Amino acid sequence: MNEVKSAELMVDQRINKDNILNQVRVFAPATVANMICGFDVLGFAVEAPGDEVTMTKVKQLGVRITSIKGDDGRLPLDPEQNTVSACAMKVLEDLGLAEEFGVEIELVKHMPIGSGLGSSSASTVAGVFAVNALLGNPLTKEELLPYCIEGEKLACGHGHADNVAPALMGGITLIRSYEPLDIVPLPVPAGMYAGIVFPHVDVPTRDARQLIKERVPLKDAVVQWGNVAGLVAGLYQNDFALIGRSMQDVIIEPVRAILIPQFAEMKAIAMSYGALSFGISGSGPSVVAITQSEAVAKTITIAIKNHLDKQEIDCNTYVSAVNTEGPRLLD
Amino acid sequence: MNEVKSAELMVDQRINKDNILNQVRVFAPATVANMICGFDVLGFAVEAPGDEVTMTKVKQLGVRITSIKGDDGRLPLDPEQNTVSACAMKVLEDLGLAEEFGVEIELVKHMPIGSGLGSSSASTVAGVFAVNALLGNPLTKEELLPYCIEGEKLACGHGHADNVAPALMGGITLIRSYEPLDIVPLPVPAGMYAGIVFPHVDVPTRDARQLIKERVPLKDAVVQWGNVAGLVAGLYQNDFALIGRSMQDVIIEPVRAILIPQFAEMKAIAMSYGALSFGISGSGPSVVAITQSEAVAKTITIAIKNHLDKQEIDCNTYVSAVNTEGPRLLD
Repeated sequence: MNEVKSAELMVDQRINKDNILNQVRVFAPATVANMICGFDVLGFAVEAPGDEVTMTKVKQLGVRITSIKGDDGRLPLDPEQNTVSACAMKVLEDLGLAEEFGVEIELVKHMPIGSGLGSSSASTVAGVFAVNALLGNPLTKEELLPYCIEGEKLACGHGHADNVAPALMGGITLIRSYEPLDIVPLPVPAGMYAGIVFPHVDVPTRDARQLIKERVPLKDAVVQWGNVAGLVAGLYQNDFALIGRSMQDVIIEPVRAILIPQFAEMKAIAMSYGALSFGISGSGPSVVAITQSEAVAKTITIAIKNHLDKQEIDCNTYVSAVNTEGPRLLD
Repeated sequence: MNEVKSAELMVDQRINKDNILNQVRVFAPATVANMICGFDVLGFAVEAPGDEVTMTKVKQLGVRITSIKGDDGRLPLDPEQNTVSACAMKVLEDLGLAEEFGVEIELVKHMPIGSGLGSSSASTVAGVFAVNALLGNPLTKEELLPYCIEGEKLACGHGHADNVAPALMGGITLIRSYEPLDIVPLPVPAGMYAGIVFPHVDVPTRDARQLIKERVPLKDAVVQWGNVAGLVAGLYQNDFALIGRSMQDVIIEPVRAILIPQFAEMKAIAMSYGALSFGISGSGPSVVAITQSEAVAKTITIAIKNHLDKQEIDCNTYVSAVNTEGPRLLD
């Protein structure tokens, strides 16, 4: 966590110790990284699922995880290993408050781990947003983002921002550059919905990344950046036809789709029911249909679930508009 | 020229033979392909330089080039080899008029050949626009574009559209896809200027393309499509800072810049005088500074010319706003 620069800029003056709360409860959303054609640079947040963090100020110094629910025992309770506690601790330290009090964290995972829906990001963002809220919001979202990226590094072994940026900022985000960090919020067309299916097959993020080749044909890269440009133009123009034509991934999907049973069949179903586009969410195995209405997204997720049932593959389905808010306080 | 589909869609009904003119004179603009970060997908038209075509209806069937000025004898007069006449002939044939009359073409090149400024495209577009104007404009610009792409294939050996599309449509254009052809006009921020320098060094388009590797590192491609997305967002948001940050080419420029003497020095001069971005126009050797004002573009081209003078390299310089009109009738 050393790469996060301390938020020195007179942050002391932004902290009013009388405003520090005793407890906050925060929801942070799942995210669809890559947005099909924008590998590592695009992502959007959804309304549900997501994770929930309850953070309580306590006298005992340090950050502790007191409980994790919904993870089937897969996440570490060690505060230095768990991204939620590690990031919260780093914020407290940078703000010079680590010697004044501690915090206890309860994490409730309302979403599957290893699903390609930004599970670790949702937890990290919930934790970072929670500690900032607990302190009376001394830091802006832009200032919180580097902590979340460091959290991703801890959780996944790489500091990508295509889940944490949309989870924290809400909406559709472009990560134009990492050095320096340059996040561009993109417009969200009214009526855009995501129909998400998480088939219960195991595709760990690290494996999914390793399949991808280090070099790609330039001609494919040209197609991809033409599509990324078309998607961004379509978002600004509210042009769903252009959005649909542009959301095609000729580089990552052909490799990763092999890991996802029934991918081609699910795609055919989605397109036959009117999806604008269909592809892999993040590194999978979740898949996402982008639609122009909630009804179409629902129809597609039901049709895909029916198909997977016949193949004896369990799945979760989610239908959601783009979440333009990002994390929020509960209660 | 076989791949252009005949414009069958009741085009007969759009031709009023009483409206066919005897002569038209057309200007079509030079273009900056790639727009620095968008290799093969982006391009924009400038106000000047450009090429001029005078087209005259004559009784003798067929299309003839009667004169070419400004090409130093480098362009073919053979009507099947010259892109202007070949494209005009194809339009006449597809419209069923090739057996009714012929045309004679005078081409005046007001711009250097092999400069990286879309010289052949300007001529092709002028010719195709001229024959359509002569006929009373039976075809839309979208219908004319495939003829221009075929013309590029004849002139350059490849049917790219990143010069002909902006030369014909005007403004900044995205070629999202070739199959099917999908051209997206992008907004032109008010006040955007190009300062162009054409150093008199020989870099044939074919050689410049051959230098480029067939496979590129995925991590560079990701940077590139992040930049393309940032540029498109910046154009829509009229955000010159974002436009400048985004117009960086990490894939093509490092290879092609080697062919252009003094490239690094010219770039340093441009950036020191306030360019938003600086890079190669098309396949070079012309270079382009993108600026937020005419004055800055002028200052940069003068400073670069002074520098090249000291190196005993001749050059042409051009300062231009983005040309939003494309080709136009003269007189």
